[in-house]
Amino acid sequence: MAVNQADFSKANAAFVESFKDGDKPLPPARKAVLITCMDARIHPEKALGVDIGDIHVIRNAGGRAVDALRSVTISQQLLGTTEVYVVHHTDCGMVTFTTQQLRQIVKERLGADDTTHYHEFSDLEQSVRDDVELLKSSPLVKPGTPVVGGVYDVHSGAVRWLD
Amino acid sequence: MAVNQADFSKANAAFVESFKDGDKPLPPARKAVLITCMDARIHPEKALGVDIGDIHVIRNAGGRAVDALRSVTISQQLLGTTEVYVVHHTDCGMVTFTTQQLRQIVKERLGADDTTHYHEFSDLEQSVRDDVELLKSSPLVKPGTPVVGGVYDVHSGAVRWLD
Repeated sequence: MAVNQADFSKANAAFVESFKDGDKPLPPARKAVLITCMDARIHPEKALGVDIGDIHVIRNAGGRAVDALRSVTISQQLLGTTEVYVVHHTDCGMVTFTTQQLRQIVKERLGADDTTHYHEFSDLEQSVRDDVELLKSSPLVKPGTPVVGGVYDVHSGAVRWLD
Repeated sequence: MAVNQADFSKANAAFVESFKDGDKPLPPARKAVLITCMDARIHPEKALGVDIGDIHVIRNAGGRAVDALRSVTISQQLLGTTEVYVVHHTDCGMVTFTTQQLRQIVKERLGADDTTHYHEFSDLEQSVRDDVELLKSSPLVKPGTPVVGGVYDVHSGAVRWLD
């Protein structure tokens, strides 16, 4: 058994005991999709006041749009969401390395020839603006979709929207 | 302003008022990464008893591993996580369409020639097993990493681990 598995099961049993949201439909009630980072310090539903059934949440390293496009298309075309939020955050691991460095680490530790682009960035706000632009200009995103960028401060818990 | 933006801001202001977790470090305290679906009915931190700072959470349509590999490598190699959980769920939208159908919808509605593979599936448990196997056999995942598969029941809130 993996290290956290028993604790997850125990917590889930308690969650099930008080679970009252079993009848929510598949399409998100608030018709929004959020793209954010996998960072352990971000609990997006708590930070934005989101209830079960409200919004789609896509998360990956950095909250990069390029990894999220497949999911956004499904969200819009099959499940009726009409706006997208892209939120990156302070103290993100994505500013601490380059793709070349990580490929070298993978080569040394795992012996693998790694061709992954890791989509790191050096400027936090610019990374959000780049991803907003990627979504707005993608032929796979519905034209005119509002795409809102923001930055989450992991120390204060505050989200600041970018103009 | 997008439809949900003001409500997100209002909820976030209340969240900031009571925020007490501003000093958590970047690497996840519980050294685990969870891959799950973007589905609006899944609030993974609540369902598994996860605190701020505990685990990485990767989410995409279906909770598919193929979209998560870049993030898992960063999680393992740069941020020290040592186990992976892959949790798909009942009543998932990924069983309701085929890639060919969605490409046709995109063509008709957006006029785009879409070559995306949407990674839909027809058998829920098999999709979890496939993704566990993809991760276990990937040259970019640390050999010997425990990879645990599970299914979340959106009606009961229960997670069931697969053997």
